[in-house]
Amino acid sequence: MRRRLRLGMVGGGEGAFIGAVHRIAARIDDRFEFVAGALSSDPERAMASAASIGLARSYADFREMASMEAAREDGIDAVAIVTPNHLHARVATAFLEAGIHVICDKPLAVSLDEGEALARLAREKGLVFAVTYTYTGYPLVRHARALVQQGALGDVRLVNVEYAQDWLSQPIERESNRQAAWRTDPALAGPAGCLGDIGTHAYQLAEFVTGMRPSEVSAEVSTFVENRPIDDHVQAMLRYANGARGLLWASQVAAGEENALRLRVYGTKAGLSFDQQNPNELWVTPLGGAAERITRGRVQGTEALHATRVPAGHPEGYLEAFAQLYADAAAQIDAAINADEAPAESALLTNVEDGVAGLRFIDAVLRSSRGNGEWVAIE
Amino acid sequence: MRRRLRLGMVGGGEGAFIGAVHRIAARIDDRFEFVAGALSSDPERAMASAASIGLARSYADFREMASMEAAREDGIDAVAIVTPNHLHARVATAFLEAGIHVICDKPLAVSLDEGEALARLAREKGLVFAVTYTYTGYPLVRHARALVQQGALGDVRLVNVEYAQDWLSQPIERESNRQAAWRTDPALAGPAGCLGDIGTHAYQLAEFVTGMRPSEVSAEVSTFVENRPIDDHVQAMLRYANGARGLLWASQVAAGEENALRLRVYGTKAGLSFDQQNPNELWVTPLGGAAERITRGRVQGTEALHATRVPAGHPEGYLEAFAQLYADAAAQIDAAINADEAPAESALLTNVEDGVAGLRFIDAVLRSSRGNGEWVAIE
Amino acid sequence: MRRRLRLGMVGGGEGAFIGAVHRIAARIDDRFEFVAGALSSDPERAMASAASIGLARSYADFREMASMEAAREDGIDAVAIVTPNHLHARVATAFLEAGIHVICDKPLAVSLDEGEALARLAREKGLVFAVTYTYTGYPLVRHARALVQQGALGDVRLVNVEYAQDWLSQPIERESNRQAAWRTDPALAGPAGCLGDIGTHAYQLAEFVTGMRPSEVSAEVSTFVENRPIDDHVQAMLRYANGARGLLWASQVAAGEENALRLRVYGTKAGLSFDQQNPNELWVTPLGGAAERITRGRVQGTEALHATRVPAGHPEGYLEAFAQLYADAAAQIDAAINADEAPAESALLTNVEDGVAGLRFIDAVLRSSRGNGEWVAIE
Amino acid sequence: MRRRLRLGMVGGGEGAFIGAVHRIAARIDDRFEFVAGALSSDPERAMASAASIGLARSYADFREMASMEAAREDGIDAVAIVTPNHLHARVATAFLEAGIHVICDKPLAVSLDEGEALARLAREKGLVFAVTYTYTGYPLVRHARALVQQGALGDVRLVNVEYAQDWLSQPIERESNRQAAWRTDPALAGPAGCLGDIGTHAYQLAEFVTGMRPSEVSAEVSTFVENRPIDDHVQAMLRYANGARGLLWASQVAAGEENALRLRVYGTKAGLSFDQQNPNELWVTPLGGAAERITRGRVQGTEALHATRVPAGHPEGYLEAFAQLYADAAAQIDAAINADEAPAESALLTNVEDGVAGLRFIDAVLRSSRGNGEWVAIE
Repeated sequence: MRRRLRLGMVGGGEGAFIGAVHRIAARIDDRFEFVAGALSSDPERAMASAASIGLARSYADFREMASMEAAREDGIDAVAIVTPNHLHARVATAFLEAGIHVICDKPLAVSLDEGEALARLAREKGLVFAVTYTYTGYPLVRHARALVQQGALGDVRLVNVEYAQDWLSQPIERESNRQAAWRTDPALAGPAGCLGDIGTHAYQLAEFVTGMRPSEVSAEVSTFVENRPIDDHVQAMLRYANGARGLLWASQVAAGEENALRLRVYGTKAGLSFDQQNPNELWVTPLGGAAERITRGRVQGTEALHATRVPAGHPEGYLEAFAQLYADAAAQIDAAINADEAPAESALLTNVEDGVAGLRFIDAVLRSSRGNGEWVAIE
Repeated sequence: MRRRLRLGMVGGGEGAFIGAVHRIAARIDDRFEFVAGALSSDPERAMASAASIGLARSYADFREMASMEAAREDGIDAVAIVTPNHLHARVATAFLEAGIHVICDKPLAVSLDEGEALARLAREKGLVFAVTYTYTGYPLVRHARALVQQGALGDVRLVNVEYAQDWLSQPIERESNRQAAWRTDPALAGPAGCLGDIGTHAYQLAEFVTGMRPSEVSAEVSTFVENRPIDDHVQAMLRYANGARGLLWASQVAAGEENALRLRVYGTKAGLSFDQQNPNELWVTPLGGAAERITRGRVQGTEALHATRVPAGHPEGYLEAFAQLYADAAAQIDAAINADEAPAESALLTNVEDGVAGLRFIDAVLRSSRGNGEWVAIE
Repeated sequence: MRRRLRLGMVGGGEGAFIGAVHRIAARIDDRFEFVAGALSSDPERAMASAASIGLARSYADFREMASMEAAREDGIDAVAIVTPNHLHARVATAFLEAGIHVICDKPLAVSLDEGEALARLAREKGLVFAVTYTYTGYPLVRHARALVQQGALGDVRLVNVEYAQDWLSQPIERESNRQAAWRTDPALAGPAGCLGDIGTHAYQLAEFVTGMRPSEVSAEVSTFVENRPIDDHVQAMLRYANGARGLLWASQVAAGEENALRLRVYGTKAGLSFDQQNPNELWVTPLGGAAERITRGRVQGTEALHATRVPAGHPEGYLEAFAQLYADAAAQIDAAINADEAPAESALLTNVEDGVAGLRFIDAVLRSSRGNGEWVAIE
Repeated sequence: MRRRLRLGMVGGGEGAFIGAVHRIAARIDDRFEFVAGALSSDPERAMASAASIGLARSYADFREMASMEAAREDGIDAVAIVTPNHLHARVATAFLEAGIHVICDKPLAVSLDEGEALARLAREKGLVFAVTYTYTGYPLVRHARALVQQGALGDVRLVNVEYAQDWLSQPIERESNRQAAWRTDPALAGPAGCLGDIGTHAYQLAEFVTGMRPSEVSAEVSTFVENRPIDDHVQAMLRYANGARGLLWASQVAAGEENALRLRVYGTKAGLSFDQQNPNELWVTPLGGAAERITRGRVQGTEALHATRVPAGHPEGYLEAFAQLYADAAAQIDAAINADEAPAESALLTNVEDGVAGLRFIDAVLRSSRGNGEWVAIE
């Protein structure tokens, strides 16, 4: 057995949802030990958070952490960045400069320029830079991608993706909900609210499964909650180079929806459908035929098998999808440390280029929306 | 018991799907007897079709039928028009001029001008003019409408409606499929293919349930099957006067979809969801709460009760929804004959004004699409 | 076109659910005209009911009706019997004796002796005797049967059928619910309550689909509502001659259930599942494989096609299933009148022999239950 | 933060499904570190397995492990027993004797006597003895239990539980499937095959949710695969002291079923339904009312909240349910070590008494089955 990789974390102190998720995800497949962190920009909270989870080394500042860890024999191999978006680029830059691999939450950054700079730096340094588009870790999402690649759908004609939530239907950011507060503050979240937070997940999921990036978008962002300084809804029409058409919408004010990331793809031969709220099934229906419910663990190719832990009928969930990103990152980091080639089965890990693609989409949507929905090129 | 109304039909000869549907629908609630028809523009086929269903009076020509029936003591009270779209206006005009009530398939006509002329004529003549937007006959669609009117959803923020089929995914119009042939021929179907055939259903359903018509649309029609002279896919973004936003798409090339007319409406307090493929349930989910599956026949208000025949758990379907339009039309025609006021519970019957609204939508979508998706006013 | 058959009805006056259902069912496929009835044992109610539905000939007494109709040139061809169970045998006997075909609700009679006498009489007279096991009229139930016959499931190992309702969870028979009153009164319903009312449906459905009748049963009937003089719940274990095992339960006190008749059959090669509450889909899953959702109207053999009116995605329901029994009965009655052989596709119509089989099951269950669940032979 | 508990494992070497599951479950909530094991009765396999997962201390023999670990200052706090059933009692006894807490797979033992002896020993020693009835760890199972306790269902009338799989539909035990081999060998699995392996899960789930143990059972075990020396199917009728009735069936030859553990409970006021294959939803339907779909993480009481890691719409699964048992065991073991009272919220952990209850059920079912399904008392 290879040694466990040493993992650090920036952000993710007490009360932060996503930090705890990253830590569970890193534990599930036992490829990491979590040893160091700068869990909060508030030094006291950082210390308290570190103590409460029994963290070996706690830092008050991420720059200090990057340099100290880089200097240690047993310093961290990788850092997980789970801060509000506006810090992603600065933190990632510090660790890349220190020669430490990066696992960063999405959106990658708050501007396309920032993101492209990160991509360049990661390439120069030859470091692994994972971006945690969680939903690409689901076995059946990977199976869906494989089906499309194998031609099971024929030529893709229609892409329909949506990500609907209702948790920001009211101005809870003014009622001391810390999650809501930073996610609706452009100074911390960047210029895109719902669009950056979940719209990018929808965009990436569609791209991941179809293997196609749209060439043009016509979009409109909206804000339904009064005095909210950022979008809480986005809808967009998409054009693809091959003539396919698409719709994407994401909303945080869709009353009754929990976390409904749903993808449908229709080709010349068959259609498929996936809802991450029940990720243990994938629907594939041939033209004119009966629908097939493919279940995780039962009928699946190598891509899904690689991301599966327990047999059919034993449901896996969000944490296992997240764990899969950590497992793939571990394989790539191991390979980088040993100057090996990364194993082929880890190649589906979403990375800094996918992060940049998300920023290009954000940029294009905001341009189109400012132009009253005119069609704009995505790249 | 009131006497059964005498019904005639234009179109609907052998092999025509929708004619047989109208006849079953008219029988279910026993308010009509079917006595006369011009079932085909081909006189021989008309005769043979009439004989095969035991029809009392068969005509070779709809104009002759209108005048002859108007002249009879026991002439028809109403005519069902189930021809290809391009004839709707001519046929309806002939029967309206003859003082006969009309039940017409949608889309109402092949141009907005034609439709508006029909609406004027119906008003002048004081005749009932039903347009069979079938899906508005479902009890739970009517219940959904009532819920919105009663404020159960709060203010509507988002409307999402889709109508997906796959039967035109291949050029079957060139393989002697008569349904496909006329529906993809602009000379018979009018300028809108998928848009007119099913897009109008989607549009009307959203309007019926929300009580709101969008003020602007940005749309694109597409044709995926090579050399098809009409659209087989449409997607559109909607703006409503109250600030609500919407998406509508309809497709006849969505591989794997059968007849998936699905509506979702999200308000400030709750969201609802309906799929006509399982019309015995309606989902309502309050903001942050548990979803409620409302079943036809069990928990329902007067609007749904009026359209319900059998108890909960005994599924009703498409034919009963269609029958409801005939039942409501019968009530209005009875009232007209007797110079009574039409019973309030029949008021949900979709009529010529709804038909005109559908034509306005078609017109706006085509304008926007020609303008590369620019936002255009709907009325 | 053949002439419409003339139909009479005994029972089914105002307020009777099932009479109205029979009448709609008889109308849907236009093979009958409803011309005579003895709609109630109460002459005034009979007259009022007949008037309210515009019935041509109304009788105060079923015996008078049988003899008068038999004597008329234009007398009825068939009678629908929709009285409480205790009258089935007497009414059916009167019409059979008069040479009139019978369509009778289930259970066929209130004792096995009665039922067997009816079967003998029908055979002697050479008359059609349909028993309306409604759920066998669903296209996908017929398709399920065909799949089993074709060997798609391999050898049947397990049969699991249930019929759950909640409408008798409380003593509503004491609150002027007429349906509940007669169905819970042994003098009117016979010795079996829930068992006779819906248990027989479950039993017949399992037999219809698998083609197998169990040889032994171990059962217990229960009464949950205090002072109810009849069972409102039954559960049973089944043994089949080929070694298969089964479970059957039916309940009218299963809170939250509407009309949940569900069948599952597992063979050596595949399993299938059907719920009549969504009768437009049938699930078939091969051993170790992905589930296939077969939809009515789309992928189906001749048996289902024969019972289908509208295309896939246009849901049919309970009334169309019921109509199918009437359509098949019409075909058989037509053939009998013309001394033809009945068309093969009408052969799935459930008949007096199926009615007797249901009575044998009731008899065996009651014997086993009295014997504290001992295994008893069914025939 | 309390120190992580030191965990050992007996069984669970390479190729053993359940050992890996226990290890992931123990890691998820970070309350254990896995330090010692006797992973196989084959010493070489034990060593290789330990090496492949980087285990600190590997033993060739469980008795040696128990004594050595008990003697170490840093010896294990608890042992997870994941061997074939026939070893459970011997292994558990050894560790209990050594003063080490036990987490044991189900069924607890291969005879009621063995199980009762274990329960006595655990009581005498005052040690925690968890039995991993995995499915009781689901948040919504705990919520269901709470609903019943709070009276949301009224008095329970009907209990319906089933556990259906298809993986033993063919004699795969003769094709080198090691899982199948020991589970179908009475010498290793004990006298109950399907009954012990999954029937006990079904039994415990029903008891856990309703809080009721049946008093009598009438059952039949069956073996469908030729020459299999153990049951692969069981069906049973249940009687409860309060008059409630129940059905339980479990099958490993139900073609098309994956891991379908489904519970339905009907009371005087409402019914509930749960399928562990989609554990993020629980259905509750009041008598005569609309069904409510309760989703994990959204609408839930303290019991479910205690067992929840991520928000609504982020599905949790089987591994998290399993982790919950480990988390609750950790809380109880911590308390035992510190001579504290175990926290109330850990009290739902299933324990040796639940294990004994499962053995009592096995014993009663086998007695009834041998007596041709006669009703026998369960305790």
